[in-house]
Amino acid sequence: MQKLLTFFSIFTLTSTLFSSTALAAIESSRAVNVDLLIVGGSIVTMNAEREVIENGAIAITNGKIDLMGTRRIVERNSRAKRVINATGKVIIPGLINTHTHIPMVLFRGISDDLDLNDWLTKFIFPAEAKNVNEQFVRAGTRLGLAEMIRGGTTTYCDMYYFEDAIADETKKAGVRGVLGETIIKFPVADNKTPEEALAYTERFIKKWKNDPLIVPAAAPHAPYTLETATLRSIKEQSDRLDSNVVIHVAETKKERDDILAQYGKTPVEYLDSIGFLSNRTIAAHSVWLTANEIDIYKNRGVGSAHCPQSNMKLASGVAPVPAMLAKDIPVGIGTDGAASNNDLNMWEEMDTAAKLHKLTSNDPKTLPAEQAFEMATIRGARALHLDKITGSLEVGKRADIVIVDMDNLNQIPSFNIYSSLVYSTKSNDVRTVIINGRLVMLDRRLLTLNESAIKRDANAYRDRIIKSLGN
Amino acid sequence: MQKLLTFFSIFTLTSTLFSSTALAAIESSRAVNVDLLIVGGSIVTMNAEREVIENGAIAITNGKIDLMGTRRIVERNSRAKRVINATGKVIIPGLINTHTHIPMVLFRGISDDLDLNDWLTKFIFPAEAKNVNEQFVRAGTRLGLAEMIRGGTTTYCDMYYFEDAIADETKKAGVRGVLGETIIKFPVADNKTPEEALAYTERFIKKWKNDPLIVPAAAPHAPYTLETATLRSIKEQSDRLDSNVVIHVAETKKERDDILAQYGKTPVEYLDSIGFLSNRTIAAHSVWLTANEIDIYKNRGVGSAHCPQSNMKLASGVAPVPAMLAKDIPVGIGTDGAASNNDLNMWEEMDTAAKLHKLTSNDPKTLPAEQAFEMATIRGARALHLDKITGSLEVGKRADIVIVDMDNLNQIPSFNIYSSLVYSTKSNDVRTVIINGRLVMLDRRLLTLNESAIKRDANAYRDRIIKSLGN
Repeated sequence: MQKLLTFFSIFTLTSTLFSSTALAAIESSRAVNVDLLIVGGSIVTMNAEREVIENGAIAITNGKIDLMGTRRIVERNSRAKRVINATGKVIIPGLINTHTHIPMVLFRGISDDLDLNDWLTKFIFPAEAKNVNEQFVRAGTRLGLAEMIRGGTTTYCDMYYFEDAIADETKKAGVRGVLGETIIKFPVADNKTPEEALAYTERFIKKWKNDPLIVPAAAPHAPYTLETATLRSIKEQSDRLDSNVVIHVAETKKERDDILAQYGKTPVEYLDSIGFLSNRTIAAHSVWLTANEIDIYKNRGVGSAHCPQSNMKLASGVAPVPAMLAKDIPVGIGTDGAASNNDLNMWEEMDTAAKLHKLTSNDPKTLPAEQAFEMATIRGARALHLDKITGSLEVGKRADIVIVDMDNLNQIPSFNIYSSLVYSTKSNDVRTVIINGRLVMLDRRLLTLNESAIKRDANAYRDRIIKSLGN
Repeated sequence: MQKLLTFFSIFTLTSTLFSSTALAAIESSRAVNVDLLIVGGSIVTMNAEREVIENGAIAITNGKIDLMGTRRIVERNSRAKRVINATGKVIIPGLINTHTHIPMVLFRGISDDLDLNDWLTKFIFPAEAKNVNEQFVRAGTRLGLAEMIRGGTTTYCDMYYFEDAIADETKKAGVRGVLGETIIKFPVADNKTPEEALAYTERFIKKWKNDPLIVPAAAPHAPYTLETATLRSIKEQSDRLDSNVVIHVAETKKERDDILAQYGKTPVEYLDSIGFLSNRTIAAHSVWLTANEIDIYKNRGVGSAHCPQSNMKLASGVAPVPAMLAKDIPVGIGTDGAASNNDLNMWEEMDTAAKLHKLTSNDPKTLPAEQAFEMATIRGARALHLDKITGSLEVGKRADIVIVDMDNLNQIPSFNIYSSLVYSTKSNDVRTVIINGRLVMLDRRLLTLNESAIKRDANAYRDRIIKSLGN
């Protein structure tokens, strides 16, 4: 719908108005109909100018941000079916979790504090072999989605098995996802060979290609768990289908050393040498990168997912995030699967990222709060190649919006909005979540998922998993 | 009151009974009166055997744990005025925050992401000079106490100004505290010279010496901010009054280097050479320690407070905690002041400690969840020299007890209780808090503090602080 709006040309943020159409003078009586109106509160836009609109308002129509500005102007120019009052709260772009294995939330805490190899081979792989099927994946996805929505995550990037079922559950819950079906050289729960997995991803990508919420992808596990020929086939498919590719890269020193020994090149150099990297690649972890490999990411437009808590817990190392940011690499923040975290909490992940890089760079000015928040929002959207539609609050973008309390005891007093968001705000301070214009949580009540059924399922799987491992 | 109890000598935890008196057979009809009875739930005792009692119960009389065991037996042997049902929940010892500057919560986020020197001299010191007085300290203490109680902290160790007012507020709120009045060589808000401060601590310690909740202490700021003679006077006072001494030690490399240059000894060696250290010392941070200095801590019985998030945020370094634990040093966990964290959240602090030391030791087996939880409870109590009365759930100890949800979406499924507590549980999962036998929070409602008044005060101070800094 075409909308004509009064534009108050006053050069302070308190009277800013952004609209999806060319701005032109109209009478205020010609207010337009909108589906949902959020009024009051401070809007942290994360647009290029990093504008923060005090006492703002956002009008949403057909799932997108149609009008944004100060409350007075937006209210005058819109007639809403539904209004949410956010006075005293902060309105932010939905958080973007750039790396997860969502169903693994059912393995939360199944084993901890072990060597990576023992953890994988003695617990995770046996537990997966004995438990993972489509129903398990669906139950785990619903639990993970519920935890993420409650923490204000509106978009996530996944890599697991039965990704078609994950897409189905994600769409039903109304969450945005870049969802990658795993391709790996040994037999797994859904596909027994990489060829089978490639056929699966072909069907999967074609099926979901134009979905408004789901971005289907292939997810080759890692350079060390796939043959070169398979990686080439995956890239060919992604070129042909114009689809994303999610992959673990250089997570551990051992991986880096092994790839170097096998191919005479470090992981990113190896992947680049076979033409694998593109501006549709999402490279998780990327801990053991050289300066040259960061340049390769830059030149190819690769997005990256930084997972500080998982990298700490598994003692993998610290990704060179400040160096990546210095080159403006699109590096987002991810929780990784809950089995190595053990939660899907983006607030703690932001806080950890900001603090960890201060420590390792020996400089408390490194990764300031605003930059950490950027990584969890617009830079994360860039990492997932989704920044045209999400990651910031801008007219024309999809309405992925989170309303956050700012007056809880752990948050007050507040002197700087980014500091409050990154260093003081908790998952529990999130009140209301809108994804693609749809309310998925209102005042902490989940609207698209059944919390008690999710809990019942999780506990039933718990008993089954314990039995399966003979404990 | 003398109580005689049936002792079921069955060698499984499901029928364990601990009582404060010698165990003897009685008739079940001779149940004793108790003030408060907690029934159901898993009791994580943190006693020497690390017993976990399923479907347990704890009876509290006169502020102490009088009877503990399985629900069936404890219920049979006690007649309670009040019963709290903890079925499905976890009952833990109250958390112990071993290092804070509690009123600084009013400076939460006043400045971040700066060099330590700029942070202190451009923001913290001016803000303190212009704002800190007794009323400020009282308001900040109430806010900090409210945040800590809501997160299950029942004991904290403090270092600030007007500590007598902090003690007063802490006692009113019913929280346990080791509270240290700052002694420093430059003029501060309450005392203009170390001599004045020593006179203050003399009165302060004598006034609070036998309080059931407050442990008064002197808090010499650090080796680099006090003359040797003053440090000796403080030690003399502490010997004479049998009181604790709280001090920052070796927080930064610069401090270590400066002390080494000035005295020819590293900080702990220097303090030991002047006879300063004892089994009443609580040494915060202790980041830059040599193996010899760890041995000195061990030999003198010094307690230490590890503050991982503050040390990361200020890029101070990483304390040698695994080496300290290997020597069984009583090292607890502290948040430090909220200005360098920016919260008083012990759950995130435990989680960070467990993960940070895995990373820096390059070994994911380092600091497993149970050990991190121990640092936040019984080892923290040892660090504060309070382990005879708190830090674990044992008959005869003061009833500092926290009841925690274990079925929230971020916690399920749960496979291991310590993993769930350290890696998945959040401050918000704390439901009920009892300190010294008194209910201070019930089902997340604060009972000893006025939340709305606290918020009003915090916001008023926010405006005043901004004005004072000319922003």
